[in-house]
Order: sequence, then structure tokens, then C-alpha cells
Amino acid sequence: MRMYDIIAKKRDGGTLTEEEIQFFVGGYVAGEIPDYQASALLMAIFLKGMTPQETAQLTLCMAKSGDTVDLSAIEGVKVDKHSTGGVGDKTTLVVAPIVASLGVKVAKMSGRGLGHTGGTIDKMESIPGLRTDLNRERFFEIVRQVGCCVVGQTGNLVPADKKLYALRDVTATVNCLPLIASSIMSKKIAAGSDCILLDVKTGSGAFMKTVEDSIRLAQAMVEIGEHVGRRTVALITDMDRPLGRKIGNALEVQEVCDTLHGKGPQDLTEVCLDLAANMLHLAGKGEPDVCRELARAQIANGQGFAKFREMAAAQGGSTAVLDNPVLFAQADTVYEVPAQQDGWITAMDTEKCGIASVELGAGREKKEDTIDYSAGIELLKKTGDRVHKGEPVARFFAASRKKCAAAEACFAGAVTIGPTAPKPEQLVYARVSAKGVERYEARN
Amino acid sequence: MRMYDIIAKKRDGGTLTEEEIQFFVGGYVAGEIPDYQASALLMAIFLKGMTPQETAQLTLCMAKSGDTVDLSAIEGVKVDKHSTGGVGDKTTLVVAPIVASLGVKVAKMSGRGLGHTGGTIDKMESIPGLRTDLNRERFFEIVRQVGCCVVGQTGNLVPADKKLYALRDVTATVNCLPLIASSIMSKKIAAGSDCILLDVKTGSGAFMKTVEDSIRLAQAMVEIGEHVGRRTVALITDMDRPLGRKIGNALEVQEVCDTLHGKGPQDLTEVCLDLAANMLHLAGKGEPDVCRELARAQIANGQGFAKFREMAAAQGGSTAVLDNPVLFAQADTVYEVPAQQDGWITAMDTEKCGIASVELGAGREKKEDTIDYSAGIELLKKTGDRVHKGEPVARFFAASRKKCAAAEACFAGAVTIGPTAPKPEQLVYARVSAKGVERYEARN
Repeated sequence: MRMYDIIAKKRDGGTLTEEEIQFFVGGYVAGEIPDYQASALLMAIFLKGMTPQETAQLTLCMAKSGDTVDLSAIEGVKVDKHSTGGVGDKTTLVVAPIVASLGVKVAKMSGRGLGHTGGTIDKMESIPGLRTDLNRERFFEIVRQVGCCVVGQTGNLVPADKKLYALRDVTATVNCLPLIASSIMSKKIAAGSDCILLDVKTGSGAFMKTVEDSIRLAQAMVEIGEHVGRRTVALITDMDRPLGRKIGNALEVQEVCDTLHGKGPQDLTEVCLDLAANMLHLAGKGEPDVCRELARAQIANGQGFAKFREMAAAQGGSTAVLDNPVLFAQADTVYEVPAQQDGWITAMDTEKCGIASVELGAGREKKEDTIDYSAGIELLKKTGDRVHKGEPVARFFAASRKKCAAAEACFAGAVTIGPTAPKPEQLVYARVSAKGVERYEARN
Repeated sequence: MRMYDIIAKKRDGGTLTEEEIQFFVGGYVAGEIPDYQASALLMAIFLKGMTPQETAQLTLCMAKSGDTVDLSAIEGVKVDKHSTGGVGDKTTLVVAPIVASLGVKVAKMSGRGLGHTGGTIDKMESIPGLRTDLNRERFFEIVRQVGCCVVGQTGNLVPADKKLYALRDVTATVNCLPLIASSIMSKKIAAGSDCILLDVKTGSGAFMKTVEDSIRLAQAMVEIGEHVGRRTVALITDMDRPLGRKIGNALEVQEVCDTLHGKGPQDLTEVCLDLAANMLHLAGKGEPDVCRELARAQIANGQGFAKFREMAAAQGGSTAVLDNPVLFAQADTVYEVPAQQDGWITAMDTEKCGIASVELGAGREKKEDTIDYSAGIELLKKTGDRVHKGEPVARFFAASRKKCAAAEACFAGAVTIGPTAPKPEQLVYARVSAKGVERYEARN
């Protein structure tokens, strides 16, 4: 078998065999296939596409390219959750405890934030003492005892994705459905859970800007999951405005606590209930509607928060800050951003909101940057709200006035104020499962 | 400017600007753009194409990437000729002396053979004493005094093509019209002649297997030539059977002499007259039909051969062998290949004929291989000829019986014998110029 022939076959629109895909992935990870041949193939895939079968095979080959996690030592159904990334997206920390409190295991590996999107690991680490770099044994032990645990990626998981992603990033081959889908799903498959719930974000703050593109990505990922024997469901959720009212690490943990106490923002609460419902459904707890009520009850009865507190404690975190959020380190500077005119907020550029929070110190522009856990944004007004000129629309938290000024310049461009109220936006647009696409009407 | 954006633009079907093309070619030759980005762009070009304008700009950027030859110090119109490569193609050595004997200058750089096609430089070097590694001054001097000279490539001509071709060769991006056309034309433009005659081969022994593909390549090259101010004409000629009867270096020089004496094979003679006619026409000597008669006269009156003899002598070659070909070194083994059945030769796989001659020692499989100048094939029968079982169809010349056996295995597969005579093949299919495509009826 020669890499040359594999490139030529895809270039001519052919369908690669499992052996050819394995030859490419294995050879590339082993350093036997040079970057310039891999990038030629990636461009051919970008322009000629891949069949669902090819995409699933690529995903499996990638998943097997390094270590894989075997969760069979943990009893019960293990459900994973993945979000394609957003601003203010703290749903994992709400839904993992809720489903765990109902007996479904969540053994989750999460990432750090980069660019305009935050990362669950950073948010957790804003809890004093909490460790996310647990070894495999301790990770399993917490999942067994508590029911959920969220750690950073450990071991040599999916080296093929790391290497391919780095190459795609410099050869203009990132934005390609089968390559995006296989990148995400290879990591989920290597992480070992039985079922996978995907939260595909759509809108100005998401990688996929339109609902239709998001549905296509969701379909590709659900097809892969089902092809390799992992029950997979995807929700298409809104990221045309930040989720909830808080952006920034400790701020988001506070909002997680509020939400688990039943006092969270309505949008965040509803999306979390939908996500939890589908995770419970995947784990065999009943139809999504029934599961949604089960989840809602875990908020009302306090068991969701108790489980979150228990997980944080097991990971070494201070429960004092969770019980009493004023104990979180506080930002030196608090600044209120005034509305620049009267009217209604008709749109928020979510990506710009994310960038503003990075300016405040809540995120990283480069991998090496350090994070100010106390920094971030509290949105006092969101899309659809009436504002008066001079009235505060947001509260900034940062280490200095200077950072606030830089962030304000960015944030001002993110908020559009118009003369009439916009039509309400939807929170969840569709649900994609093996049975097909179920589109939702606006609920809010 | 970023290479990433240039890749993305072409990937999306955009048209690159002159600046973008220069950025790519210059940066790639300088080693500032890595192979993996260049190969991604090449694949995008392969699949999305290039406009004639882009192709011309790419060609010029490549031509200017290294040394260029300035022929202005040589008086008169300089006409170059390029063949896309064939088996038994010794036309340069026939037509250069003919047109030079009529006052048109030919300052030609030629290549060596590799794979199944021979190279003019190797053929010339089969003449004892002849040098093709002349320095620029001596090259110019011979062109001025004799009117024609054929040397190997000197200096750092078109490094962009060398580097890009090597990359295309391993990334399945060779067979792409704008890339083939720019590769050929960049070298012709750097070589400095005023006019360019292209001999685009078509058929089983050619890179382009069909007449229509050959016409498309010819059109792309003529467009480039005209775009950069070099008068360019292309002939589409047959390579569905070897040209002439002899394949192999000294054997082909003997056939050149025969042809210049008016005793050459009919197919070779006719194609040479067409090529010479168009070179003379490009140099302003009149309409092609008129020029063809001028060329024919130079064979009849002996001035063509005299010019060939003069050029060989100026380059240090023995004229004794040209006057008396038995003085050429003779092969140790001569073997006649018998026909395997009665019938007509209905087809010859020209590429296989070329490979058989390489087996005999007449060519190179790898660049480092040495050539046996006396080795080769004399075709006693060609496509359309009647053969009887056991009758010799070819004569092999080689250093050993063993080489003949290896070549026979290959040659047997090249000759198809059928029960009825095939329809006569055409020698020249079309002529492509700035005015358009002129298709020819069969003449033979």
C-alpha cells in the first residue's frame, strides 16, 4: 500500500477502505507518512468529502491511535457529554451532578479554555484546592463512590487527533464536516463511556453559525457513534448569546450553584434540564420528557447541589466557597458598562463577549497564559431586554481598570441596541438521534 | 499576506492575485513556506483549477525564480522547440539543423532520458567526443556561428519547478493541466527564445493519452506563451506507436542522419517537416505550407545534414561516425524478435516499447543509471504491417543475451497482432495557435 495511491484515490472522489484509512492514520502518527502527504490528503478530503462509513472508520482508527480508557471496571451505565464550545457554557457542572444523583455514572475528561471559549477544567480549578490532574485510579474511585468526576485529559489520548488538528490548523482544512466530526468523536470514543450526549452550539459564538450546519455536524457525529456501538444523541442549542448571565471561571461556578439551588438564569436552567434529560434517557431512565422531570426534581430536592458539593470535595475542593460564594477570591476592580443608547438589545455577538472576558483576564489567548479566576463578566441585560441610555448592561470584574477599558472597547461592539424588541430566540433548536432529526418550536 | 489565506482562497474556488502567486512561489523556493502548506495548495489547485491569467502568472513567477538566459546578444529570431516526451522521438536533431540552415537560430537546452522516454542530450552524447556541458559563452558562440546548438540545462534554471515537481510527484498532483503547462512553459521562458514550438505527444506512449487532453494542454501552454509575449504554436502529434523505426541513442542518431539524407522513415520525416515548417513560420519565414517546402528542400539539397554535421563538430563530436555510421560502437548481441502469430500489427503499446529499450540498456530507470549508447531496438514491423508467425518484427541490440530476454518479455506484451488490418493512424492531429485549434484529417 502506498500513501500516494490513497491520496490519488480520494482526489478522484473514491471511497477509502478501512485498510487505507488505517494505513494513513497509523503511518502518520508513527511519523512514517510526511506532513506534505497528509496535508494533500486532508485537502482532498476537504474538497471531495467522506462517506459516513469512511468517517466512522477514520474516527475509530484515530480513537485507537493512543491510549484508551476502559471504564468497564466501573459498574453501571457511563454517559459522557460534549459541548462544541461556547461562552458562559457551564452546563457540565450542572448536569453531571444531577444525572449522577440519579445513579448514572459520569466519568468525564474535559478541556481547558482557549480563545473566546472557556473550559470546564479552568472553571473547576477556580474552586480553591480542587484538583483535576487525578490519576486513573483516583478518577475511577471517585466515579464509583460519588457517581461523577471531571478531570483533565490524561495519558496519550488520541495522538492522531493532536497531530492532524495541528496540520489542519495551518493548511486551511479545519472547517470540514467529516474531519470535525471524527476529531470530536475519536476523543469521546477513546474516553470509554457507553453513551454520548453531544451539545452542538449554533450561532455567533459557536463554530457552526447556522442551525442547518449544526444539524449536519450533529448527524455526522451521531452516525459515527451509532456505527461504533455508542448510543449517541445530539441537541442543537443556542449560542447566539452567552448562556446564563455569568462569564468567567469563579463567576460561572457561582452560577452553577445558583442553578442547582433552583435560582439560576432561566436559559441556563432550561438547557441544563434538556441536556440532563437526554443523558438520563441514553442511560435507560425513560423517555426524555419523563427524565426532564426527574432532573428538575433533583434541583428542587437539593440532591443535585449535594452531589456537586460531594464531587468537588472528593477532588480536593473547598466546599466552604460553594456554601458561601463571597468566600471566592474577589476581583480588585468592578466596573459597570453603561448602555450607549435607549432601546432593546437586539443582538449580542457572543464571540466578542468571550473575547472581552479574555481581555478581563478570564481566559487565554495563548496556551501559556495564566487565568485570573475572579475575572469575568456579569450580564445585567441580555438580548431582548429593554435598556435606557447610561443604565448598566454588564458588570466587569478584573484586576485593573486598564483591563476593563480594553474589554469595554470589545464589548461595546458586541451589543446591538435597536428601536424595537427582537423576536424571542430559541434555546434548543433540534434533537438528532439514530431515529432522525426532531426540530423544536420556540419554547421561550 | 499569509500562506494560510492563499490556500483557503483557492480551496474555495477563488482566483489568486499576482501578488499571492508571487508570495507562494518566492516563499516556497526560499524555504519560508513549508512543504505541507505547498502541497495543500497544490491539491486545491488540482481540484479547483486556475484561470489562464493565474496560470500565466504562476509560469512567470516560476520562470523568474532562478537564472534566466538572455539571448538578445545573439542576432536574429531565436526559436525553441519542446516535446512532451516520447519513444523514438529524435525530431530535435532533425529539425534544429534544418531551420538553422535557413537562418533561424536554435539555442536549445535539452534534457536526459528517464523512464520509458529518451532524452536528446543522451542521444547527442552517443556521438564520440560530443560535449553537451558547454559554458554559456561557448553555447552562444556556436549558436552565432553555426545557427544551432543543443546543450544540457546549465545554471540554476527554474528552481521553483524542480522543487514543486518533486512535491507534486509524491502528493498525486502531477496530472493537473495548469501545473503541467506552467512547469513546461516556465523552463521555455527562462531559456530565453523569442518563439516556442511545442510538440504535444498523444497516445499510449505519451503523458496525454487522448487527442482532446493533448489539445487542452496545448491550449493552456499557447495561452501562457502569448500572455508573456512569446509567440507559441503547438502541434499534437502521434505517440501511439514509436516515432521512426529506431529506439536507442546511437541508433536514433543514425536514423537522424538517414532522415537528413532523405532516406528516413516516412512517419519521422513527415512529422519533422511539420515541426520545422512551424518553427520557420514562427520565425517569420512565411505560411506553414510554404515553410514546409523550404524545409523539404534543405533535405534534398543536403544543407540540413551539413548543418547537423557542423553543429556536432562544433560541440566536439566525431563527424566520422556521422559520415559512416558503421564506425559507431556496435552492440555485442543482436537478437531478432519473432512474431508470435500471423496477422496484422493492430497496436503497439509505446510505453512498453520504451521500457523494453531501457531493459536493453538504452535508458535509465533511476537518475544514476548509466546508458549503453549502442543498445536499443530497430522496429522491422510497425502498426499496420502484415506479419507472419516466426518472422522477425524487431531487432534488439544489447550487451548480453540476458538483457534481450528481459526486454523480449516486455516487448511481447507491447505488440498486438490481429486478424485484420487496422485503420491507418494519423501523424499530426491538430495545430494550436493564438488563432485557435486547427484539426487535421489523416494524411497518411
